[in-house]
Amino acid sequence: MNWFTIDDESDDESLNREIQMWAPYTQAVRDLIDVSVRTTVDEDEIIAATAQIEEIVARLRKEQMTATLGVAHQPAGRRRPWGNPVIGVRNPMAPTLTTTSSEGRVESDFHCGAAFEGPPGLVHGGVVSMVLDQVLGHAVGTTGRPGMTGTLTIVYRQGTPLGDLRCEAWVERQEGVKTWAKGHIIGPNGVTAEAEGVFILPRRVREALAAAEAGGEPIRGLRIFE
Amino acid sequence: MNWFTIDDESDDESLNREIQMWAPYTQAVRDLIDVSVRTTVDEDEIIAATAQIEEIVARLRKEQMTATLGVAHQPAGRRRPWGNPVIGVRNPMAPTLTTTSSEGRVESDFHCGAAFEGPPGLVHGGVVSMVLDQVLGHAVGTTGRPGMTGTLTIVYRQGTPLGDLRCEAWVERQEGVKTWAKGHIIGPNGVTAEAEGVFILPRRVREALAAAEAGGEPIRGLRIFE
Repeated sequence: MNWFTIDDESDDESLNREIQMWAPYTQAVRDLIDVSVRTTVDEDEIIAATAQIEEIVARLRKEQMTATLGVAHQPAGRRRPWGNPVIGVRNPMAPTLTTTSSEGRVESDFHCGAAFEGPPGLVHGGVVSMVLDQVLGHAVGTTGRPGMTGTLTIVYRQGTPLGDLRCEAWVERQEGVKTWAKGHIIGPNGVTAEAEGVFILPRRVREALAAAEAGGEPIRGLRIFE
Repeated sequence: MNWFTIDDESDDESLNREIQMWAPYTQAVRDLIDVSVRTTVDEDEIIAATAQIEEIVARLRKEQMTATLGVAHQPAGRRRPWGNPVIGVRNPMAPTLTTTSSEGRVESDFHCGAAFEGPPGLVHGGVVSMVLDQVLGHAVGTTGRPGMTGTLTIVYRQGTPLGDLRCEAWVERQEGVKTWAKGHIIGPNGVTAEAEGVFILPRRVREALAAAEAGGEPIRGLRIFE
Protein backbone atom coordinates (compact mmCIF):
# COMPACT_ATOMS: atom_id res chain seq x y z
CA MET A 1 0.00 0.00 0.00
CA ASN A 2 1.36 3.41 -0.73
CA TRP A 3 0.45 6.99 0.08
CA PHE A 4 -2.42 7.31 -2.37
CA THR A 5 -4.02 3.92 -2.04
CA ILE A 6 -7.78 3.83 -2.06
CA ASP A 7 -8.25 0.53 -0.32
CA ASP A 8 -11.94 0.03 -1.04
CA GLU A 9 -11.58 0.14 -4.80
CA SER A 10 -7.91 0.00 -5.68
CA ASP A 11 -8.66 -2.27 -8.62
CA ASP A 12 -11.00 0.28 -10.16
CA GLU A 13 -9.63 1.28 -13.54
CA SER A 14 -11.05 4.80 -13.58
CA LEU A 15 -9.60 5.50 -10.15
CA ASN A 16 -6.19 4.33 -11.26
CA ARG A 17 -6.48 6.55 -14.30
CA GLU A 18 -7.28 9.52 -12.05
CA ILE A 19 -4.30 8.72 -9.83
CA GLN A 20 -2.06 8.48 -12.90
CA MET A 21 -3.22 11.94 -13.90
CA TRP A 22 -2.89 13.52 -10.45
CA ALA A 23 0.41 12.04 -9.30
CA PRO A 24 2.63 13.89 -11.82
CA TYR A 25 0.57 17.10 -11.46
CA THR A 26 0.95 17.03 -7.68
CA GLN A 27 4.66 16.24 -7.94
CA ALA A 28 5.11 19.26 -10.26
CA VAL A 29 3.46 21.58 -7.71
CA ARG A 30 5.46 19.94 -4.91
CA ASP A 31 8.65 20.67 -6.87
CA LEU A 32 7.43 24.26 -7.31
CA ILE A 33 7.02 24.59 -3.52
CA ASP A 34 10.54 23.23 -3.04
CA VAL A 35 12.12 25.59 -5.53
CA SER A 36 10.16 28.51 -4.02
CA VAL A 37 12.40 28.37 -0.98
CA ARG A 38 15.59 27.54 -2.91
CA THR A 39 15.72 29.56 -6.11
CA THR A 40 18.15 32.43 -6.52
CA VAL A 41 17.02 33.62 -9.97
CA ASP A 42 16.55 37.32 -10.68
CA GLU A 43 13.58 39.40 -9.66
CA ASP A 44 12.39 39.54 -13.29
CA GLU A 45 12.18 35.74 -13.39
CA ILE A 46 10.17 35.65 -10.15
CA ILE A 47 7.76 38.27 -11.44
CA ALA A 48 7.35 36.40 -14.74
CA ALA A 49 6.78 33.12 -12.90
CA THR A 50 4.19 34.80 -10.65
CA ALA A 51 2.16 35.94 -13.67
CA GLN A 52 2.35 32.50 -15.27
CA ILE A 53 1.29 30.72 -12.08
CA GLU A 54 -1.63 33.15 -11.64
CA GLU A 55 -2.68 32.34 -15.19
CA ILE A 56 -2.61 28.57 -14.50
CA VAL A 57 -4.63 29.11 -11.30
CA ALA A 58 -7.25 31.09 -13.23
CA ARG A 59 -7.56 28.28 -15.77
CA LEU A 60 -7.90 25.58 -13.10
CA ARG A 61 -10.39 27.70 -11.18
CA LYS A 62 -12.75 27.88 -14.18
CA GLU A 63 -14.43 24.74 -12.87
CA GLN A 64 -13.99 23.94 -9.22
CA MET A 65 -15.90 22.40 -6.33
CA THR A 66 -17.71 24.72 -4.00
CA ALA A 67 -17.42 22.10 -1.26
CA THR A 68 -14.02 20.86 -0.18
CA LEU A 69 -12.69 17.58 -1.52
CA GLY A 70 -13.25 15.73 1.76
CA VAL A 71 -16.86 16.84 1.91
CA ALA A 72 -17.41 16.18 -1.79
CA HIS A 73 -16.12 12.62 -1.46
CA GLN A 74 -18.21 11.86 1.59
CA PRO A 75 -21.68 11.33 0.05
CA ALA A 76 -20.39 8.46 -2.09
CA GLY A 77 -19.89 6.48 1.09
CA ARG A 78 -16.25 5.94 0.38
CA ARG A 79 -13.49 8.17 1.55
CA ARG A 80 -10.67 9.18 -0.70
CA PRO A 81 -8.14 11.15 1.33
CA TRP A 82 -6.86 12.85 -1.82
CA GLY A 83 -6.90 16.33 -0.35
CA ASN A 84 -5.23 15.29 2.92
CA PRO A 85 -2.28 17.63 3.64
CA VAL A 86 -0.04 14.74 4.76
CA ILE A 87 -0.96 11.90 2.39
CA GLY A 88 -3.28 13.27 -0.32
CA VAL A 89 -2.50 12.39 -3.93
CA ARG A 90 -3.92 15.79 -4.93
CA ASN A 91 -2.26 17.75 -2.12
CA PRO A 92 1.16 19.16 -3.09
CA MET A 93 1.98 19.89 0.57
CA ALA A 94 1.97 16.17 1.42
CA PRO A 95 5.50 14.88 2.02
CA THR A 96 4.81 11.73 -0.04
CA LEU A 97 4.51 9.03 2.59
CA THR A 98 5.13 5.50 1.29
CA THR A 99 3.29 3.31 3.74
CA THR A 100 2.98 -0.35 4.62
CA SER A 101 0.42 -1.40 7.17
CA SER A 102 -0.95 -4.43 8.95
CA GLU A 103 -3.66 -4.51 11.60
CA GLY A 104 -2.62 -2.12 14.34
CA ARG A 105 0.73 -1.17 12.82
CA VAL A 106 1.90 1.32 10.16
CA GLU A 107 5.33 2.13 8.78
CA SER A 108 5.81 5.14 6.52
CA ASP A 109 8.89 6.33 4.73
CA PHE A 110 8.85 9.97 3.74
CA HIS A 111 11.05 12.82 2.68
CA CYS A 112 11.22 16.35 4.08
CA GLY A 113 13.05 18.79 1.82
CA ALA A 114 13.88 22.48 2.22
CA ALA A 115 10.23 23.56 2.43
CA PHE A 116 9.80 21.66 5.72
CA GLU A 117 12.64 23.43 7.52
CA GLY A 118 12.23 25.03 10.94
CA PRO A 119 15.57 25.47 12.70
CA PRO A 120 18.43 25.51 10.17
CA GLY A 121 18.83 22.07 8.60
CA LEU A 122 16.08 20.54 10.73
CA VAL A 123 12.44 19.65 10.13
CA HIS A 124 10.00 22.13 11.74
CA GLY A 125 8.74 20.71 15.05
CA GLY A 126 5.19 21.29 13.88
CA VAL A 127 5.76 19.18 10.76
CA VAL A 128 7.09 16.40 13.01
CA SER A 129 3.87 16.52 15.05
CA MET A 130 1.74 16.67 11.89
CA VAL A 131 3.25 13.50 10.41
CA LEU A 132 2.99 11.68 13.75
CA ASP A 133 -0.68 12.66 14.09
CA GLN A 134 -1.40 11.28 10.63
CA VAL A 135 0.52 8.01 11.03
CA LEU A 136 -0.77 7.26 14.54
CA GLY A 137 -4.28 7.95 13.26
CA HIS A 138 -3.61 5.61 10.34
CA ALA A 139 -2.51 2.83 12.73
CA VAL A 140 -5.77 3.31 14.64
CA GLY A 141 -7.70 3.16 11.37
CA THR A 142 -6.19 -0.22 10.43
CA THR A 143 -8.12 -1.80 13.31
CA GLY A 144 -11.40 -0.96 11.57
CA ARG A 145 -12.27 1.48 14.37
CA PRO A 146 -10.90 4.80 13.05
CA GLY A 147 -10.53 7.76 15.37
CA MET A 148 -10.26 11.51 15.48
CA THR A 149 -7.33 12.72 17.57
CA GLY A 150 -8.36 13.35 21.19
CA THR A 151 -4.97 14.08 22.70
CA LEU A 152 -1.50 13.95 21.21
CA THR A 153 1.78 14.28 23.09
CA ILE A 154 5.09 14.64 21.29
CA VAL A 155 8.46 14.32 23.00
CA TYR A 156 11.27 15.73 20.89
CA ARG A 157 14.46 13.72 21.62
CA GLN A 158 16.78 15.41 19.11
CA GLY A 159 16.48 17.58 16.03
CA THR A 160 14.99 15.77 13.02
CA PRO A 161 17.35 16.40 10.08
CA LEU A 162 15.86 17.26 6.69
CA GLY A 163 16.01 14.33 4.28
CA ASP A 164 14.73 10.76 4.23
CA LEU A 165 12.83 9.80 7.36
CA ARG A 166 10.66 7.01 8.70
CA CYS A 167 7.60 7.10 10.90
CA GLU A 168 6.34 4.01 12.73
CA ALA A 169 3.13 3.78 14.74
CA TRP A 170 1.21 1.06 16.49
CA VAL A 171 -1.93 0.57 18.54
CA GLU A 172 -1.38 -0.01 22.24
CA ARG A 173 -4.96 -0.76 23.35
CA GLN A 174 -8.65 -0.08 22.69
CA GLU A 175 -11.37 0.51 25.24
CA GLY A 176 -14.87 1.62 24.31
CA VAL A 177 -14.63 4.50 21.86
CA LYS A 178 -10.97 5.17 22.68
CA THR A 179 -7.85 3.80 21.06
CA TRP A 180 -4.35 4.46 22.40
CA ALA A 181 -1.52 4.58 19.89
CA LYS A 182 2.21 5.25 20.03
CA GLY A 183 4.81 6.00 17.44
CA HIS A 184 8.08 7.67 16.59
CA ILE A 185 10.09 9.27 13.84
CA ILE A 186 13.46 7.80 12.97
CA GLY A 187 16.25 9.77 11.29
CA PRO A 188 19.80 8.77 10.37
CA ASN A 189 20.81 9.08 14.04
CA GLY A 190 17.92 7.11 15.52
CA VAL A 191 14.63 8.14 17.06
CA THR A 192 14.11 11.92 16.91
CA ALA A 193 10.59 12.25 18.33
CA GLU A 194 8.13 10.03 20.15
CA ALA A 195 4.36 10.36 20.17
CA GLU A 196 1.47 9.05 22.17
CA GLY A 197 -2.14 9.71 21.26
CA VAL A 198 -5.70 8.89 22.21
CA PHE A 199 -8.10 8.64 19.28
CA ILE A 200 -11.88 8.77 19.59
CA LEU A 201 -14.27 6.82 17.36
CA PRO A 202 -16.58 9.47 15.85
CA ARG A 203 -20.29 9.14 16.56
CA ARG A 204 -21.28 8.77 12.90
CA VAL A 205 -18.83 5.87 12.54
CA ARG A 206 -20.12 4.31 15.76
CA GLU A 207 -23.63 4.45 14.29
CA ALA A 208 -22.48 2.99 10.97
CA LEU A 209 -20.69 0.14 12.77
CA ALA A 210 -23.79 -0.60 14.88
CA ALA A 211 -26.07 -0.55 11.83
CA ALA A 212 -23.70 -2.83 9.92
CA GLU A 213 -23.52 -5.32 12.78
CA ALA A 214 -27.31 -5.33 13.04
CA GLY A 215 -27.81 -5.77 9.30
CA GLY A 216 -24.85 -8.00 8.51
CA GLU A 217 -23.74 -5.54 5.81
CA PRO A 218 -20.06 -5.06 5.01
CA ILE A 219 -18.82 -1.54 5.68
CA ARG A 220 -16.96 0.23 2.95
CA GLY A 221 -14.50 3.01 3.40
CA LEU A 222 -14.00 2.94 7.15
CA ARG A 223 -10.29 2.29 6.84
CA ILE A 224 -9.68 5.13 4.49
CA PHE A 225 -9.34 8.25 6.53
CA GLU A 226 -6.54 7.03 8.68
CA MET B 1 4.04 42.89 13.12
CA ASN B 2 2.82 40.45 10.52
CA TRP B 3 3.73 37.02 9.33
CA PHE B 4 6.77 38.00 7.35
CA THR B 5 8.26 40.59 9.66
CA ILE B 6 12.02 40.61 9.98
CA ASP B 7 12.33 42.39 13.27
CA ASP B 8 16.04 43.16 13.17
CA GLU B 9 15.95 45.11 9.94
CA SER B 10 12.38 45.85 9.02
CA ASP B 11 13.33 49.35 7.89
CA ASP B 12 15.80 48.02 5.38
CA GLU B 13 14.72 49.08 1.90
CA SER B 14 16.22 46.13 0.05
CA LEU B 15 14.53 43.70 2.42
CA ASN B 16 11.18 45.37 1.87
CA ARG B 17 11.76 45.16 -1.85
CA GLU B 18 12.44 41.45 -1.55
CA ILE B 19 9.28 40.95 0.49
CA GLN B 20 7.27 42.88 -2.09
CA MET B 21 8.59 40.52 -4.74
CA TRP B 22 8.03 37.32 -2.77
CA ALA B 23 4.59 37.98 -1.26
CA PRO B 24 2.63 37.89 -4.55
CA TYR B 25 4.71 34.98 -5.86
CA THR B 26 4.06 32.94 -2.72
CA GLN B 27 0.37 33.82 -2.80
CA ALA B 28 0.15 32.62 -6.41
CA VAL B 29 1.67 29.24 -5.48
CA ARG B 30 -0.59 29.09 -2.39
CA ASP B 31 -3.59 29.64 -4.68
CA LEU B 32 -2.27 26.88 -6.93
CA ILE B 33 -2.14 24.48 -3.95
CA ASP B 34 -5.73 25.44 -3.06
CA VAL B 35 -7.04 24.89 -6.57
CA SER B 36 -5.13 21.58 -6.77
CA VAL B 37 -7.61 20.05 -4.33
CA ARG B 38 -10.65 21.89 -5.74
CA THR B 39 -10.49 21.98 -9.51
CA THR B 40 -12.81 19.88 -11.63
CA VAL B 41 -11.41 20.78 -15.06
CA ASP B 42 -10.81 18.10 -17.68
CA GLU B 43 -7.87 15.71 -17.73
CA ASP B 44 -6.40 17.58 -20.72
CA GLU B 45 -6.25 20.79 -18.69
CA ILE B 46 -4.50 19.03 -15.80
CA ILE B 47 -1.96 17.50 -18.14
CA ALA B 48 -1.34 20.88 -19.80
CA ALA B 49 -0.97 22.58 -16.41
CA THR B 50 1.47 19.87 -15.28
CA ALA B 51 3.74 20.54 -18.26
CA GLN B 52 3.60 24.29 -17.69
CA ILE B 53 4.38 23.98 -14.00
CA GLU B 54 7.29 21.65 -14.74
CA GLU B 55 8.61 24.26 -17.15
CA ILE B 56 8.40 27.02 -14.49
CA VAL B 57 10.17 24.75 -11.99
CA ALA B 58 12.98 24.11 -14.48
CA ARG B 59 13.44 27.85 -15.01
CA LEU B 60 13.49 28.62 -11.27
CA ARG B 61 15.90 25.73 -10.64
CA LYS B 62 18.48 27.18 -13.07
CA GLU B 63 19.97 29.04 -10.12
CA GLN B 64 19.24 27.70 -6.68
CA MET B 65 20.88 27.32 -3.28
CA THR B 66 22.55 24.04 -2.51
CA ALA B 67 21.99 24.72 1.21
CA THR B 68 18.48 25.23 2.54
CA LEU B 69 17.19 28.75 3.12
CA GLY B 70 17.48 28.45 6.92
CA VAL B 71 21.07 27.34 6.69
CA ALA B 72 21.90 29.94 4.03
CA HIS B 73 20.50 32.75 6.18
CA GLN B 74 22.33 31.64 9.29
CA PRO B 75 25.88 32.87 8.61
CA ALA B 76 24.70 36.47 8.28
CA GLY B 77 23.92 36.41 11.98
CA ARG B 78 20.32 37.37 11.40
CA ARG B 79 17.52 34.91 10.95
CA ARG B 80 14.91 35.36 8.30
CA PRO B 81 12.29 32.63 8.70
CA TRP B 82 11.30 32.99 5.05
CA GLY B 83 11.30 29.29 4.34
CA ASN B 84 9.36 28.36 7.49
CA PRO B 85 6.41 26.08 6.57
CA VAL B 86 4.03 27.92 8.93
CA ILE B 87 5.06 31.57 8.60
CA GLY B 88 7.61 31.90 5.78
CA VAL B 89 7.08 34.66 3.20
CA ARG B 90 8.66 32.34 0.61
CA ASN B 91 6.84 29.19 1.72
CA PRO B 92 3.52 28.62 -0.12
CA MET B 93 2.45 26.01 2.44
CA ALA B 94 2.31 28.62 5.21
CA PRO B 95 -1.30 29.45 6.15
CA THR B 96 -0.52 33.19 6.25
CA LEU B 97 -0.49 33.98 9.94
CA THR B 98 -1.09 37.65 10.75
CA THR B 99 0.50 38.07 14.14
CA THR B 100 0.66 40.63 16.92
CA SER B 101 2.98 40.04 19.81
CA SER B 102 4.15 41.53 23.06
CA GLU B 103 6.65 40.09 25.52
CA GLY B 104 5.46 36.60 26.39
CA ARG B 105 2.27 36.71 24.33
CA VAL B 106 1.35 36.14 20.68
CA GLU B 107 -1.95 36.33 18.82
CA SER B 108 -2.19 35.08 15.25
CA ASP B 109 -5.09 35.16 12.85
CA PHE B 110 -4.88 32.67 10.04
CA HIS B 111 -6.93 30.93 7.40
CA CYS B 112 -7.12 27.23 6.60
CA GLY B 113 -8.69 26.49 3.23
CA ALA B 114 -9.48 23.22 1.46
CA ALA B 115 -5.83 22.13 1.31
CA PHE B 116 -5.69 21.87 5.12
CA GLU B 117 -8.63 19.47 5.42
CA GLY B 118 -8.44 16.23 7.41
CA PRO B 119 -11.90 14.97 8.36
CA PRO B 120 -14.57 16.40 6.01
CA GLY B 121 -14.92 20.14 6.59
CA LEU B 122 -12.38 20.16 9.41
CA VAL B 123 -8.73 21.15 9.68
CA HIS B 124 -6.37 18.14 9.84
CA GLY B 125 -5.39 17.45 13.46
CA GLY B 126 -1.74 17.54 12.45
CA VAL B 127 -2.13 21.04 10.99
CA VAL B 128 -3.70 22.13 14.28
CA SER B 129 -0.64 20.84 16.16
CA MET B 130 1.73 22.41 13.62
CA VAL B 131 0.26 25.90 14.03
CA LEU B 132 0.22 25.55 17.84
CA ASP B 133 3.88 24.47 17.87
CA GLN B 134 4.83 27.52 15.81
CA VAL B 135 2.81 30.06 17.80
CA LEU B 136 3.80 28.71 21.23
CA GLY B 137 7.43 28.77 20.06
CA HIS B 138 6.93 32.35 18.89
CA ALA B 139 5.58 33.36 22.32
CA VAL B 140 8.68 31.82 23.88
CA GLY B 141 10.87 33.72 21.41
CA THR B 142 9.36 37.09 22.38
CA THR B 143 11.03 36.77 25.79
CA GLY B 144 14.48 36.94 24.16
CA ARG B 145 15.17 33.33 25.18
CA PRO B 146 13.97 31.33 22.15
CA GLY B 147 13.50 27.59 22.41
CA MET B 148 13.28 24.42 20.40
CA THR B 149 10.24 22.33 21.24
CA GLY B 150 11.01 19.77 23.97
CA THR B 151 7.52 18.40 24.54
CA LEU B 152 4.17 19.42 23.10
CA THR B 153 0.76 18.18 24.22
CA ILE B 154 -2.39 18.95 22.28
CA VAL B 155 -5.90 18.35 23.61
CA TYR B 156 -8.51 18.42 20.86
CA ARG B 157 -11.77 19.75 22.33
CA GLN B 158 -13.86 19.79 19.15
CA GLY B 159 -13.25 19.70 15.41
CA THR B 160 -11.60 22.84 14.03
CA PRO B 161 -13.69 24.01 11.06
CA LEU B 162 -11.93 25.13 7.88
CA GLY B 163 -11.97 28.91 7.50
CA ASP B 164 -10.77 31.88 9.54
CA LEU B 165 -9.15 30.90 12.82
CA ARG B 166 -7.15 32.42 15.63
CA CYS B 167 -4.27 31.06 17.65
CA GLU B 168 -3.22 32.59 20.98
CA ALA B 169 -0.18 31.58 23.01
CA TRP B 170 1.56 32.82 26.12
CA VAL B 171 4.51 32.02 28.33
CA GLU B 172 3.65 30.48 31.69
CA ARG B 173 7.12 30.41 33.29
CA GLN B 174 10.85 30.13 32.67
CA GLU B 175 13.39 28.16 34.68
CA GLY B 176 16.98 27.68 33.55
CA VAL B 177 17.00 26.63 29.90
CA LYS B 178 13.29 25.68 29.93
CA THR B 179 10.27 27.80 29.11
CA TRP B 180 6.70 26.58 29.58
CA ALA B 181 4.07 27.95 27.22
CA LYS B 182 0.37 27.39 26.67
CA GLY B 183 -2.01 28.28 23.90
CA HIS B 184 -5.17 27.44 22.01
CA ILE B 185 -6.93 27.68 18.69
CA ILE B 186 -10.26 29.48 18.52
CA GLY B 187 -12.86 28.83 15.83
CA PRO B 188 -16.35 30.27 15.34
CA ASN B 189 -17.64 27.99 18.15
CA GLY B 190 -14.91 28.73 20.67
CA VAL B 191 -11.72 26.93 21.64
CA THR B 192 -11.11 23.87 19.47
CA ALA B 193 -7.71 22.72 20.73
CA GLU B 194 -5.44 23.50 23.66
CA ALA B 195 -1.68 23.13 23.78
CA GLU B 196 1.03 23.04 26.40
CA GLY B 197 4.71 22.90 25.56
CA VAL B 198 8.16 22.98 27.08
CA PHE B 199 10.77 24.75 24.99
CA ILE B 200 14.52 24.37 25.46
CA LEU B 201 17.04 27.17 24.87
CA PRO B 202 19.52 25.73 22.33
CA ARG B 203 23.16 25.51 23.37
CA ARG B 204 24.41 27.85 20.62
CA VAL B 205 21.92 30.52 21.72
CA ARG B 206 22.96 30.00 25.34
CA GLU B 207 26.56 30.60 24.32
CA ALA B 208 25.64 33.67 22.27
CA LEU B 209 23.68 35.12 25.20
CA ALA B 210 26.58 34.49 27.59
CA ALA B 211 29.11 36.05 25.20
CA ALA B 212 26.87 39.06 24.67
CA GLU B 213 26.41 39.57 28.40
CA ALA B 214 30.18 39.36 28.88
CA GLY B 215 30.99 41.76 26.04
CA GLY B 216 28.06 44.14 26.36
CA GLU B 217 27.18 43.59 22.67
CA PRO B 218 23.59 43.75 21.49
CA ILE B 219 22.38 40.44 20.07
CA ARG B 220 20.79 40.52 16.67
CA GLY B 221 18.32 38.03 15.37
CA LEU B 222 17.48 36.08 18.51
CA ARG B 223 13.84 36.98 18.28
CA ILE B 224 13.51 35.89 14.71
CA PHE B 225 13.00 32.18 14.72
CA GLU B 226 10.01 32.18 16.92
